[in-house]
Amino acid sequence: MNRNLLKWGALGVATLALAEPAFAQQGTDEAAAAVAVGGGTAYILNTLLFLIGGFLVMWMAAGFAMLEAGLVRAKNTSVQCLKNIGLYSIAGLMFWIIGYNIAYPGDFNGFIGGFTGWYPMQEVGAADTETGYSVASDWFFQMVFCATTASIVSGTLAERIKIVPFFIFVTVLTGIIYPVVVSWEWGGGFLDAQFGFSDFAGSTLVHSTGGWAALIGAIILGPRLGRFVDGKVAVFPGTNIPLATLGTFILWLGWFGFNGASQLAMGTVGDVSDVSKIFVNTNMAACAGVVVAIILTQIRYGKADVTMALNGALAGLVSITAEPLTPNVGMAVIIGAIGGVIVVYTVPLLDKLKIDDVVGAIPVHLFAGIWGTMAVPLTNGDANFLGQFVGVVATGVWVCVASGIVWLILKAVMGLRPTEAEELAGLDHSETGIEAYPEFVQT
Amino acid sequence: MNRNLLKWGALGVATLALAEPAFAQQGTDEAAAAVAVGGGTAYILNTLLFLIGGFLVMWMAAGFAMLEAGLVRAKNTSVQCLKNIGLYSIAGLMFWIIGYNIAYPGDFNGFIGGFTGWYPMQEVGAADTETGYSVASDWFFQMVFCATTASIVSGTLAERIKIVPFFIFVTVLTGIIYPVVVSWEWGGGFLDAQFGFSDFAGSTLVHSTGGWAALIGAIILGPRLGRFVDGKVAVFPGTNIPLATLGTFILWLGWFGFNGASQLAMGTVGDVSDVSKIFVNTNMAACAGVVVAIILTQIRYGKADVTMALNGALAGLVSITAEPLTPNVGMAVIIGAIGGVIVVYTVPLLDKLKIDDVVGAIPVHLFAGIWGTMAVPLTNGDANFLGQFVGVVATGVWVCVASGIVWLILKAVMGLRPTEAEELAGLDHSETGIEAYPEFVQT
Amino acid sequence: MNRNLLKWGALGVATLALAEPAFAQQGTDEAAAAVAVGGGTAYILNTLLFLIGGFLVMWMAAGFAMLEAGLVRAKNTSVQCLKNIGLYSIAGLMFWIIGYNIAYPGDFNGFIGGFTGWYPMQEVGAADTETGYSVASDWFFQMVFCATTASIVSGTLAERIKIVPFFIFVTVLTGIIYPVVVSWEWGGGFLDAQFGFSDFAGSTLVHSTGGWAALIGAIILGPRLGRFVDGKVAVFPGTNIPLATLGTFILWLGWFGFNGASQLAMGTVGDVSDVSKIFVNTNMAACAGVVVAIILTQIRYGKADVTMALNGALAGLVSITAEPLTPNVGMAVIIGAIGGVIVVYTVPLLDKLKIDDVVGAIPVHLFAGIWGTMAVPLTNGDANFLGQFVGVVATGVWVCVASGIVWLILKAVMGLRPTEAEELAGLDHSETGIEAYPEFVQT
Repeated sequence: MNRNLLKWGALGVATLALAEPAFAQQGTDEAAAAVAVGGGTAYILNTLLFLIGGFLVMWMAAGFAMLEAGLVRAKNTSVQCLKNIGLYSIAGLMFWIIGYNIAYPGDFNGFIGGFTGWYPMQEVGAADTETGYSVASDWFFQMVFCATTASIVSGTLAERIKIVPFFIFVTVLTGIIYPVVVSWEWGGGFLDAQFGFSDFAGSTLVHSTGGWAALIGAIILGPRLGRFVDGKVAVFPGTNIPLATLGTFILWLGWFGFNGASQLAMGTVGDVSDVSKIFVNTNMAACAGVVVAIILTQIRYGKADVTMALNGALAGLVSITAEPLTPNVGMAVIIGAIGGVIVVYTVPLLDKLKIDDVVGAIPVHLFAGIWGTMAVPLTNGDANFLGQFVGVVATGVWVCVASGIVWLILKAVMGLRPTEAEELAGLDHSETGIEAYPEFVQT
Repeated sequence: MNRNLLKWGALGVATLALAEPAFAQQGTDEAAAAVAVGGGTAYILNTLLFLIGGFLVMWMAAGFAMLEAGLVRAKNTSVQCLKNIGLYSIAGLMFWIIGYNIAYPGDFNGFIGGFTGWYPMQEVGAADTETGYSVASDWFFQMVFCATTASIVSGTLAERIKIVPFFIFVTVLTGIIYPVVVSWEWGGGFLDAQFGFSDFAGSTLVHSTGGWAALIGAIILGPRLGRFVDGKVAVFPGTNIPLATLGTFILWLGWFGFNGASQLAMGTVGDVSDVSKIFVNTNMAACAGVVVAIILTQIRYGKADVTMALNGALAGLVSITAEPLTPNVGMAVIIGAIGGVIVVYTVPLLDKLKIDDVVGAIPVHLFAGIWGTMAVPLTNGDANFLGQFVGVVATGVWVCVASGIVWLILKAVMGLRPTEAEELAGLDHSETGIEAYPEFVQT
Repeated sequence: MNRNLLKWGALGVATLALAEPAFAQQGTDEAAAAVAVGGGTAYILNTLLFLIGGFLVMWMAAGFAMLEAGLVRAKNTSVQCLKNIGLYSIAGLMFWIIGYNIAYPGDFNGFIGGFTGWYPMQEVGAADTETGYSVASDWFFQMVFCATTASIVSGTLAERIKIVPFFIFVTVLTGIIYPVVVSWEWGGGFLDAQFGFSDFAGSTLVHSTGGWAALIGAIILGPRLGRFVDGKVAVFPGTNIPLATLGTFILWLGWFGFNGASQLAMGTVGDVSDVSKIFVNTNMAACAGVVVAIILTQIRYGKADVTMALNGALAGLVSITAEPLTPNVGMAVIIGAIGGVIVVYTVPLLDKLKIDDVVGAIPVHLFAGIWGTMAVPLTNGDANFLGQFVGVVATGVWVCVASGIVWLILKAVMGLRPTEAEELAGLDHSETGIEAYPEFVQT
């Protein structure tokens, strides 16, 4: 799907939904959905959707921060907090400086867009009403997606990376690597134009991109000290389960904005009905992911695993993100449930491969993201398996190669890891100098 | 009030508020309130209210999780997190599978509605515009209310129930027990049709229902080991007060959606003005509950009790929920203040009765819920004390009997409680195998 | 800017934005922005902006609670939670009883407005549609600003003030001191009418007011025991950095409501576009504050300071609050970045002056607030430096004198501080009797 709304005609957004066969298939009467609202009102409502969706997705930055702060060990918690507020801020600056222009190349129909000035979204804003929404609201909504991509990397690489190379990587990821992926699809590039690739809200563009970058980073960085020793896997339990639970609920809440506002319009009866269906499907996929994770771990281990339940929710959410609109509720439940299965079975798999993923972000965001992307053609007649496969592979190759090069350069130039002594003492001591819980006696 | 919007005519929702005498009584000029907006715009705005209200009430699930995680002891915290994310997920699935159809029986004018398919809200959606809002958005809003009911039970029964029977109880509660109550009133059943029972946003339907189920569960389950020994009450202080505070603030925030969006429409000037009044009254009742709880505990114990202040907020919120629209601000303050008084004086009462309510959910949700329900006729001329009393009693009898049967069956079949050794060691060890705070040395 | 919407004509709000030169300067086509929506629709959308903005700013109360709970020591955490939920509740009641009428004096064109009854916002509501929005929604939005002012004081004075005098001070602050400041500007008083003072969302009216009250309080109260001894500064590290991080993210989220909804209307294409620009500028100023704080502390101390990064975000947000609309993004970044610089350099300054500000609220809210206010003329041609300076000074003098008198009276009548033994044991013991973390062994 081409998400570059600027290409549509004046208020063209108001009729977008009607042009989508999937919408009609779902039984909503087209004539009813075409009930018109005034152009000004549609503009306001479309913009409002971006603003609400935007602040909900911004809030996901807090969700990742809490999830990760809860799942690392106490001695690395402050650094994890610092990384999360820092990466969001870098994403904001980089997406403004260069990212948005790469992602949505405008007149120049290539991969790399021109940097059109001090306040590009506003220059476009001069012709605001041609788009059917405020360009600044769209920019904000796109920016928070960019930040989400970086958040995913943060969790996987926790507890063993210095913050300076981490922040430099985030700078490149949010300024270039992620925007290039977006340009291929939402920006109207080759995946959209030539392969009919379909990724409604970013199972591949956001979640897999973050997941691939995390995977390559984890391989290059290596596991935490003591994690895989003598063929055994040491478990480093998360230090604060309620915080991780809070983070998951925050992410779940934010996902209503992530998927719902990716409808990109609510200025028609049809659009707002679609947003509503997306809310239901998003919620139900997450519910299914949780229940499956609880049942599977209860059966497998005799105890329902709370962190697996949290990751089950997230895997269900990632799975439905590539297509939250066309599935009926039953299919949404199935898609989310399979996400839950994936996470339960691939978390141990990574351990076997000796890939150290501190919070389980690779199963959740990469594996469930691939599943969700490949499942699109099951319910959306406009997508096909080949196109989806090409999208998955192209994204994977680009992100792995580009990320790998950046990681290797950083490793060569400044090193990625603290010293062993620093890592054992905890990064909070060496990287930020502030303990997360200085008064609580720790084991 | 019949909340089954489907019975209204095309866009009839747009004129609902005008038909309510209470609205005119409050001094808003009827002619002004009748300022019309287009049908399509009203549809979009009504739907948007459900979506915003829905995500705010969904967020309350996180509030309950944090409140309970903060008020239990550390050794049971992970299980409490697991229970909360699990119960929300079960509620979602059960309300889809059967609950919504029982609650809103549609053509079959009885207690139990037909299960009309794989995606019922969407089949109705084919005639979407007849309702004046997206049916999926309504479904989402109703579903999160169902989850709230289950959350209430979770807190009372903390620290001494196995998760498998708990989750099975939640399945029945969210699939059948709660939906039946809803069918009697919001579904247009006998409480609505024959008794003029009025419960705007669910002091009885949601909060008392949860409270009764919790009360019966607490009686059947018995108190925690060591809680009532030799006529003395042992206090088990909550392990994390900031988390409990956070949970209360989350619930307070979510309540704007809970009460505000229960107006069920904002497609007219009158409706959105009513939503605004509801926001103010909801907020002020909570403020009054807090201040009363602080003053009473300061006077009674010489120290203002922070957990009582938190519960005072919640009691104020529950109290105003049965009628947040017709009171003027002064009455909202009084209604909420009495909620605060109730919670301060009934928490110790439960201790005397040796009913072990870990988080104080029974005073907050049941006692304040009854108070709020009985207070409706004070400000709403359409309600009467007899009808309110019948509603309270009918709900209480049904929920106590049905819940009691389910609890007793579960007790007989699989047992409700862990072994004494398991309970003393903490449920986190036996039920989920994951400690909440593994690195913090605990007393 | 006069924020007293009641003075505008019927639906006049719908054309406000067009009258602002700044709007035209930013390149949005005036003709496009004038695209009209129906009066009823504009009323609904304006009201909705207040409701969404209102619940987001209400949520900031939780942000302050978490930030402060994370930055105090464990032994004072419960009291900090109690103070935060208590002050919000007192603010709600006082702003209803007297505050709003002082702030927006209505017919009486003086500093002190009449208290017009049991439910004043509703009496005005009888003529609701003349204003272009629901008066209750406006009242709610104004009330949460009042609460924010009190939150600022709470953080600075933590760990050494008894709750009774604190709550009495909050009563006066929210009932009188803050409303008087508001009346001078948003209420149409002399700062607005005679000096052209401009403070879009409250860098001075809210943040500096809170900051001045905190500063005077800190001077009168004195530092915590052991903080400044023998010319040395003892550091008392915050007990829970993830909570402080969460609090910062909550505040950041809430700020979209704080600044965005201070546009006071979204019933026109121009207004909602302005709200969108405000979202972008608010976000970017915070991003810049974070990045600057990270870079400066990394350079200065060799370690990026996580609490400074959090305060950098807040300083960026406060800085942009006086004028979040007219700057282009580049200027928003610069304004926020300078906020970050201010906080990094003035936190140590306060230590040198032996002013004990537990959470850094004075640098963040007062110093950055002054900076933001003085920066308005850089981008807004309607403001001038003299007017801004007068506003800063007048606010400072009034708040310092009034607050100082109240603090001194309270000190004389009941004393402000607990005994030394109580302070050393922690206020949780003496003031609320409930430990925040009773099970965690503490150093």
